[in-house]
Amino acid sequence: MRTQNLTLLTDLYELTMMQGYYETQENETVVFDVFFRENPDKGGYSVMAGLEQVIEYIKNLNFSYDDVDYFRKLGIFSEDFLQYLSGFHFSGSIYAIPEGTVIFPKEPLLKVIAPIMEAQLVETAILNIINHQSLIATKASRVVYAAQGDGIMEFGLRRAQGPDAGLYGARAAVIGGCVGTSNVLAGQMFDVPIMGTHAHSWIMSFKDEYTAFKEYAKLYPHACTLLVDTYDTLKSGVPNAIRVFREMREEGIHPRSYGIRLDSGDLAYLSKKARKMLDDAGFPDAVIAASNDLDEMLIHDLKMQGAKITSWGVGTNLITSKGCPSFGGVYKLAAIRKPDGEFAPKIKISENTEKITNPGNKTIFRVYDKETGKIRADLICFADETFDTDQDLLLFDPNATWKKTRLPGGSYRMQEILKPVFVNGECVYESPSVMEIAAYCRREKETLWDETKRLFYPHRVYVDLSQKLYDTKEMLLNEMSK
Amino acid sequence: MRTQNLTLLTDLYELTMMQGYYETQENETVVFDVFFRENPDKGGYSVMAGLEQVIEYIKNLNFSYDDVDYFRKLGIFSEDFLQYLSGFHFSGSIYAIPEGTVIFPKEPLLKVIAPIMEAQLVETAILNIINHQSLIATKASRVVYAAQGDGIMEFGLRRAQGPDAGLYGARAAVIGGCVGTSNVLAGQMFDVPIMGTHAHSWIMSFKDEYTAFKEYAKLYPHACTLLVDTYDTLKSGVPNAIRVFREMREEGIHPRSYGIRLDSGDLAYLSKKARKMLDDAGFPDAVIAASNDLDEMLIHDLKMQGAKITSWGVGTNLITSKGCPSFGGVYKLAAIRKPDGEFAPKIKISENTEKITNPGNKTIFRVYDKETGKIRADLICFADETFDTDQDLLLFDPNATWKKTRLPGGSYRMQEILKPVFVNGECVYESPSVMEIAAYCRREKETLWDETKRLFYPHRVYVDLSQKLYDTKEMLLNEMSK
Repeated sequence: MRTQNLTLLTDLYELTMMQGYYETQENETVVFDVFFRENPDKGGYSVMAGLEQVIEYIKNLNFSYDDVDYFRKLGIFSEDFLQYLSGFHFSGSIYAIPEGTVIFPKEPLLKVIAPIMEAQLVETAILNIINHQSLIATKASRVVYAAQGDGIMEFGLRRAQGPDAGLYGARAAVIGGCVGTSNVLAGQMFDVPIMGTHAHSWIMSFKDEYTAFKEYAKLYPHACTLLVDTYDTLKSGVPNAIRVFREMREEGIHPRSYGIRLDSGDLAYLSKKARKMLDDAGFPDAVIAASNDLDEMLIHDLKMQGAKITSWGVGTNLITSKGCPSFGGVYKLAAIRKPDGEFAPKIKISENTEKITNPGNKTIFRVYDKETGKIRADLICFADETFDTDQDLLLFDPNATWKKTRLPGGSYRMQEILKPVFVNGECVYESPSVMEIAAYCRREKETLWDETKRLFYPHRVYVDLSQKLYDTKEMLLNEMSK
Repeated sequence: MRTQNLTLLTDLYELTMMQGYYETQENETVVFDVFFRENPDKGGYSVMAGLEQVIEYIKNLNFSYDDVDYFRKLGIFSEDFLQYLSGFHFSGSIYAIPEGTVIFPKEPLLKVIAPIMEAQLVETAILNIINHQSLIATKASRVVYAAQGDGIMEFGLRRAQGPDAGLYGARAAVIGGCVGTSNVLAGQMFDVPIMGTHAHSWIMSFKDEYTAFKEYAKLYPHACTLLVDTYDTLKSGVPNAIRVFREMREEGIHPRSYGIRLDSGDLAYLSKKARKMLDDAGFPDAVIAASNDLDEMLIHDLKMQGAKITSWGVGTNLITSKGCPSFGGVYKLAAIRKPDGEFAPKIKISENTEKITNPGNKTIFRVYDKETGKIRADLICFADETFDTDQDLLLFDPNATWKKTRLPGGSYRMQEILKPVFVNGECVYESPSVMEIAAYCRREKETLWDETKRLFYPHRVYVDLSQKLYDTKEMLLNEMSK
């Protein structure tokens, strides 16, 4: 239904550089890393998402006749280079952290090993996809955490930044923990639960609120959530809803799920009043759902204030990640293969220590405490390093090397979290379904300490370097400063 | 290349309501208005964008066999209703303000007059498209204003919220005033200028910075902007760039455009130092371009501080409209056609006066000062009202009716700004090209007073109601409160 070739979804400079490499270099194989520097919203972790769409993008990479013709008209590319583009396909390898995994700043989320012309082209689209979906999955995870077990429904499509932002944002929101989305296309494409009842226009199109509720209840007796704030929530909406629920009961109809939705006013006050009215009328199991510019902070506060809401609809603030609408993933050159086949590590320096890249062809081992199953640290090392978990493991902060922790041999286990996705152009990875990824993400969050999941000033998880990687980085920095 | 049917890009509740209307009502013709309540970033105006994509969406509206089959599996729709969906197409009328027009809160940007089932379905996608593109066009317009005539290039694709956000965001950015985008797909689809040179990886892939610059200059002698901050901007980058420019000159190469790009460090300080170095070396026409987390506030401040930058690349903060990542367009029922063919106005009340809707089938007249050509006010009235510009015009604020202005007859002119787009299902509007829209938008901004264009605490343009519309609204409010 949506067939789209995103080959041209790239920055022009990727193409001008490609032609430059074509003209001046041997198209050496290089390593590029995708990583980010800070969790959104000053959180303690992020959630990886978007890999399935990256895979589709890579599989479909090719320049059509029209594309090449468009480039020709730009007047900056040689016929030789355009000829090369006509036959272009991706022949490299990609390693990535699976979707739904909890991730931390500095570590390579995705690694491209490919001839430099190919590796350069794919930068923009890979970043676009991973940055967007990881942003929304992370935001959703925060909102879900704030709701303390209540269901969060994503319904921000109308405020999303374009169709894809709504569609893939809904996908990412479910990965991050939402129970469903209003987005019908997302439901169809990703087989995720879709939800929704009615809007104010439904109520306004009938002669009165009671009739609108009554007709709705007749049509959808088994999932009957009535929007009660069109006229006056407590004087009109809730009483009319109760009248309809009572009539349903008298008619012998017992809905699987029924209740009211509040969409304006003070949600703490109104939900407590409505709860009492529903309870007094004999409907203690009627659900009170709420919406209206919610985010994790407001849900956290409403929970603190004893709001009687157990179902939440979150729109704009989730689908745009308002407050932090971008995930700062970058794509940096880490190594160039030498004629002897070895990778020569490359480093990008900066006045800002935090912005110096980690050189070389790397991987990540996640270090778990054996007793609790919780994450102790992530260890970035060269791809060919091995570790013996019977030995003590010395962890140290690469920016403050005096911060050291020694894990006794046998007390921890390690797991490599970068997985092969493409090997020499062939896809070797099968994406799980979105609901499988969501279930995996729930398990992933159980590996985080509570202190890391906190919304405010969370404890940071350490991302350390192996001794060998640290020494190489130091050596390159010393060489640079000569 | 991108064929996509967005019929299912809707909220589930639109479909459950549609089925509800199908079962309970006569599918009366109704009027829905799209309007917004506040300009993004507390600005004085916004820029309309996205209409061309709304038109494509409406033209392509239809449910495929697969779509209907998906609905059937959901188990909430009757076979009769699914049958109706199979034959669905849009038969209504749409009026809209053309893209690139400056727009203000409260006024209907787009009006749908259609049988209620059709009008309800299209709510979500119309809002999604208009909200996104108007947001980015408005942000771009602010950034362009801050740059005081310098060119702004949009290059945020890698941080955009998904592929569409990058693609249509680039389109909207050009409408709002950007001179071009890095986005190749946007260039191809919308025939807008694309721009770009090279990244740090280009520099790092050569044995040294000079060689990287030299090779780049050989390849692209006519538009040669060199990125100077990979190692050390003032000690290495600028001197190497000057060396290459000097060699080009010695070889008799005179580029159409050449210069440097700063991408880190303090842009005011570095640009002044670099300007002096370039001038002293005999390159006073070398352009200094800058990028690195720019937005309209930072550009405004850098200009104030005398930064020697005349070309700006703006990424994340523009493409996500960071700080205000959503445009609050809503879609509200305004009237229902009665059996006699007249429209019965409908109103949505709220505890918040600002949130009360304007009832009826309406249009907007823009009132211009004849002498200056500047906008005096927008006047919302019923669609069948007429005005004689030889007569005095009394304007008044609908929320503070004591605020009145009388325009003498002959001193003003009026122009209806809502244009027919679809009439009874037929598209009667041809979208201009994006570059035509951008040129129109530049002229539109000339109709704004300087006080309205200011970035901080701008003067608001009045959006008033006709006496007849005001009286009708009051009457409905009085009826409601009975």
